[in-house]
Order: sequence, then structure tokens, then C-alpha cells
Amino acid sequence: MTTSINLITPPGELLELIESARRPLLIAHIAPDGDAIGSLLAAGILLHYLGKEPLLACQDRVPVTLRFLPFQDQIKSDVRDFDPDVVIAVDSSDPSRMGAIYDPDRFYQAPLVVIDHHVTNVHFGDINWVEPSCCAAAEMIYYLMRALDVTPTKELASCLLTGLVTDTRGFRTANTTARVVGIASKLMEAGAPLNRITENALNSRSYDLISLWGRVLGTVQRDGGIISVSNERAMREDLNGIIRADGVVSFILGAYAAKVAVVLTELPEGKIECSFRARPGSDVATIALQLGGGGHPLASGCTVEGTLPDVRQQVFALLRETNAWAE
Amino acid sequence: MTTSINLITPPGELLELIESARRPLLIAHIAPDGDAIGSLLAAGILLHYLGKEPLLACQDRVPVTLRFLPFQDQIKSDVRDFDPDVVIAVDSSDPSRMGAIYDPDRFYQAPLVVIDHHVTNVHFGDINWVEPSCCAAAEMIYYLMRALDVTPTKELASCLLTGLVTDTRGFRTANTTARVVGIASKLMEAGAPLNRITENALNSRSYDLISLWGRVLGTVQRDGGIISVSNERAMREDLNGIIRADGVVSFILGAYAAKVAVVLTELPEGKIECSFRARPGSDVATIALQLGGGGHPLASGCTVEGTLPDVRQQVFALLRETNAWAE
Repeated sequence: MTTSINLITPPGELLELIESARRPLLIAHIAPDGDAIGSLLAAGILLHYLGKEPLLACQDRVPVTLRFLPFQDQIKSDVRDFDPDVVIAVDSSDPSRMGAIYDPDRFYQAPLVVIDHHVTNVHFGDINWVEPSCCAAAEMIYYLMRALDVTPTKELASCLLTGLVTDTRGFRTANTTARVVGIASKLMEAGAPLNRITENALNSRSYDLISLWGRVLGTVQRDGGIISVSNERAMREDLNGIIRADGVVSFILGAYAAKVAVVLTELPEGKIECSFRARPGSDVATIALQLGGGGHPLASGCTVEGTLPDVRQQVFALLRETNAWAE
Repeated sequence: MTTSINLITPPGELLELIESARRPLLIAHIAPDGDAIGSLLAAGILLHYLGKEPLLACQDRVPVTLRFLPFQDQIKSDVRDFDPDVVIAVDSSDPSRMGAIYDPDRFYQAPLVVIDHHVTNVHFGDINWVEPSCCAAAEMIYYLMRALDVTPTKELASCLLTGLVTDTRGFRTANTTARVVGIASKLMEAGAPLNRITENALNSRSYDLISLWGRVLGTVQRDGGIISVSNERAMREDLNGIIRADGVVSFILGAYAAKVAVVLTELPEGKIECSFRARPGSDVATIALQLGGGGHPLASGCTVEGTLPDVRQQVFALLRETNAWAE
């Protein structure tokens, strides 16, 4: 049985620039996630394999759940001693995402390359390779690797698969294509340990987060197609500074009757952060916009002044008004 | 880019029997899960495509989360009017799994075929095709389809992918091979909607289950590498008969420090059901065996007489004694 993966070809000028580079500086975005770190490391391994001397950088620390990745301890947050001949930003939609790493005054002679899959990318580089059809920046680094005719090592494959797995939440997002799943299979054949990656990057959480889930889920309410929970400051006093109950909004949207899920989080300074998720057919972009936030029809958010009961009332009135949970 | 999937070949006598059959009876196991229903429907569609007149049967109802599958409403729980010339049990490790559907007195003239992936299969058929290396019975039906030279329709592909997705919990179990992921990619190319399948079969739950999660997680405790919760009868009085907090044991095992996870569930008749999960390197088979249950090193269970506090004390004493959570 044979099958083929339709590869996407990177721009020729990008390939030429990479082939001629000697000291590339690779930058992942601030508050890095699995795709930021995975695609950064994969690009670094790839360029090292091609005989370059890359430096890998990120303003913020590698999250605990990603410290199983090879070479993650070589990512620097201080690049003052490095003089790059090209700068490559991965998974970053605008220059602010590079944080303190990118210093335009120092790097003005080095061309800036943008490799990103966000539809919102502002094309801030000298060369911009932006592919919104890709589910992850790691998918693009895979195509780059193939265009450069490199066979992945286990390490390279592991970093790429981590990017695919985290940005698709384990192949669960709507943009997970047959192509992405086919690439995942190829990376596993090259030695990438899917189970280890999912266990570390997706199925690991702090004890405090587990405790907070219990307390937040204890407030669950439903009102027609709206399912909601509250995350109050008082619930978290003994929980070592944790604020958000990550993952709860997707979990409650899984209720059979739910069309819209709402998580109201009381922030330390007293404002209320509202997270909205919708099943296909409903739309939560409008309500977030009305409340000064933004997002997409199926996932949006905003931060509102007020007490938790007041904001809850306001949000529910708007949801009923816009009929956001209608089919 | 071309790749190949190493196919497993079904036994020749199985292929011959299927080719000669006219009225096959296909049976999924009692209390059917996604692989039981997915592989049953896929086998039925395959045999129908080959010009047979199959009857699909299962003693118990199709779970709500699987009612999105094509032709699921054609699965019968009463087969008294059907006179099969071959009986095929899918995903069933012993004859009791066929429940009330299989009547040996009526079906003694029809050869019994077993298609199953459980290592515990007792080979109860006239022809037994048992492949413990397969992650799901649906993987075996895929190989059967390929051996019979059939190209999957969208419907057939959707049923097969549902079996793969549910038995691997969305490609997260340790037995998820590159081959399985490659097959998933092929099924998606044939039209199987991965996102719809995961949303329905994995990410849907009752409001009562969400409420129960909140109450059960509210009891979370840790003791060294042991993380545990209790599910008491009193917590569930207003929850419409739900008993188990499905999924909680895997969720709490995700705690950074956890080596062993324990869920103690007070059953309606007062006994305590103990569910154990372990990270690789630990072993919870021993403790379950000691308490009259069974299972594997990483997942086991037992049911014990006693009150919840007493059983908890007993379980923790044994866990400490066997040092089950040691690396």
C-alpha cells in the first residue's frame, strides 16, 4: 500500500537565505506553548544538521510539561553575545510576540524571516512565509525539512510531533487534516514517541490545577444551551498563585445539551475574565466583541470591570439577547 | 512522498468463508463501546458491499455518544427471525460477551468466526482470528477490507476510524503505532470526519457526569506519589442514577508528582470499587490481585466489602507496603 503526502513548498528566497546563513538566530514567541518550543527546537536541529551554528532563543522559560524535549535546555533568554546573520521568528504573528529577544537596533543588518501559521500574521519580516492552512508551525518546519531534503532523526521528529500534537490538542481540533495525521505517522516511524509526548505535553497538570478544577466544576450551572462555571478568587487562596482553570471550558462544552460554554474567572485585581466556547452552529464572537474582547465564532474572550455576579448577569442577558446558542 | 502500511493478512480460511457466506450474523459485545459498534458497522457495510445480506446485532443499546454513526439504527437486539449461514463475533474475548444474541442451539450449523484483538481471547470460535498487536478490532476490519480489495466509502471509513479513535482514546494509549496513525490518515482521506468523531465519541458527556466530576475532584488528596479521590453515594443522590466518574482516574494521574492514581467508588449496595492507574515504572496489578481483582501493571481494579474509610485505609496500607509507586 502506498500513499503520498502533498508537501507545501517554502518560498525559494527563504530556502536560499537558509542555505547561505551561518549564524541564524531562531526566536520562539513569549509565553511559549508546545508548538513554539517544538518548532523552535526542530528548526534548530535542522539547521545544525545542515552545518549552521544556530542560537535558539525565547524570552520566557520552557514550560514544565515540555522539559522532556531534547535540547530544550539549550534555549537562551539572553542573546547579547550573539551576532546573527539571519533572524527567524517561528509561530509569531506580530513583532511583539518575540518579546525582549528581538532588538531592532542590534539586528538591523540581519534579514528577518517569519515562519508562521496564524491567519492574523501581520507579515512583519523581510521574508514572510505564512501558511494559515497549516495546523502548527511545526507542520511548516516539516515541509522546510523535506524541501531541504533532510531525513528526520528521532530528536527532530519528536520536536515536530510535539508541535503538531499540542496545537491540535492531540488531533482533536477541526483543522486536523488527513495530511497532518499522515505526517504524524511518518514522524512516529522516524522514532517520535507519540505516547510520551501526549502524556507530558497534554496529560500533565499541577496538583493545584486538579484541585481548582474540582472547585470550579462545583459551580456548574446550565441554562438552556448555556453551560457555565465560576472561578472565584476565594477558591484559590490556598493554591499557590494559580489563576485559570485551564481546560475547563472545553470540558463543560462537552455536555450533551451545551451549545455555549462560559467560564467567568475573577482576576487578582478584581476584573472578570470571560472565556466563551461554542459548538459549531453557534457563535460567541459577537458577545466578546460587544464586551470589548475578541476571538472567533467558536472561541472568544473578554475582560470586564465589575463583580462576578454583576458580570454573570450582564453576560447571560447578552447571550439570551443575541441568541448565541441557537442552532 | 510515498509510504507504505504493512498490512496484516487475515487467515485464508476466514477469507474463503466470508466469500462463500450469504447471510452472515455479526455480533458486537454487550455494553458496547466505540470499537464494538464501529467494527460491527464497518464489517456490516463491507459485507453488504460484497453482495451479502448481513444482520448486525448487539444485546445492548448503542450508546448516545455513538448515535451519529451511519446505519447504527439498523443494529438489532432480536435475531429470532434470522437464519445465518455464518456467525461472526467482533471485539469479543469470550462467548459470554455475545450476551443473549448468540443461541448455540439455534446456530449450531453456522460456523462461528471470532475477530478480536484482546490478548485474553479464549479462542471460542471455529475460526479464530486474534491479533493482540492491533489497537482495536476496527484495525483488523481495515485489514480484512484491504484483503478483500475493497476501497472504503465515507461511511465505512467513519466506522473504522471511530473504532481506532475510541480504543486509543484519541491516539493516546501506549499501543498507538505509526501504522494505526497512518491508517487513520488514509481513512480521513476517504472522508472520515476525525473532528466530528472525537467530538461525539470522546468529548461528549452528561451534565450529571460533569457535576459528579466536580464533587469527586473536591476530595482530591495526595500522599507521596499516590493521588486519590473518593466517589461517595451521598454525592450522587441528585444525579439521576449515575455511579462512576468516568475518566477521573486518568485525569488525576496527570498530576506532576503522581505515580499511582486511586479512585474509590461507593457502589449502590455499599461495596467499594477501587480503580487503580499507574505511570510506567509503577505497578498496580499486584494490589488489585491481593484484593481479589485483576488487571495490568498500569491499570487494574477490584471490588472490596467495607466502608469507604476502612477500604481507603486498607488500600493505602497495601500501596505503601508493596511500594507500588516506586520508580
